[in-house]
Amino acid sequence: MIFSVQIKVMPLKELLDPQGKAVLGGLQNLGILAISDVRVGKNIVLQLEAATAEEAKQIAEEATKKLLANQVMEMYEISIS
Amino acid sequence: MIFSVQIKVMPLKELLDPQGKAVLGGLQNLGILAISDVRVGKNIVLQLEAATAEEAKQIAEEATKKLLANQVMEMYEISIS
Repeated sequence: MIFSVQIKVMPLKELLDPQGKAVLGGLQNLGILAISDVRVGKNIVLQLEAATAEEAKQIAEEATKKLLANQVMEMYEISIS
Repeated sequence: MIFSVQIKVMPLKELLDPQGKAVLGGLQNLGILAISDVRVGKNIVLQLEAATAEEAKQIAEEATKKLLANQVMEMYEISIS
């Protein structure tokens, strides 16, 4: 069975997010002043073959820990559909 | 009122996603073979001051169209909480 798995990877709240700060500056230069904070992370969508949703989750966790997220600097959230 | 707005920006389905292909190759090198496709996009979280959720959505749309997404190559999805 093929599962579609979505993984959001975001910089940890405690850390600076230079990309987010750059985007915030860009928005202000465009005159969009209602936005006070921007954080930029990744949204990764996988197609994954597994017997059950449980197994799909495990494979996605393994992929995330080994390659997709750097847990020293990032947090992640996995959802399966 | 402060709204937290999440914007997912993904490469259009019709287009190649070289970053996704690179990640897929990396996963295969790690021996994770159950994953057949990877697409990598952005997940952007904004803090935004607006009177209503409707207004927050409009500001987020404007920011996305002007700066966050390139509509020639990317699609986006906005959700507000």
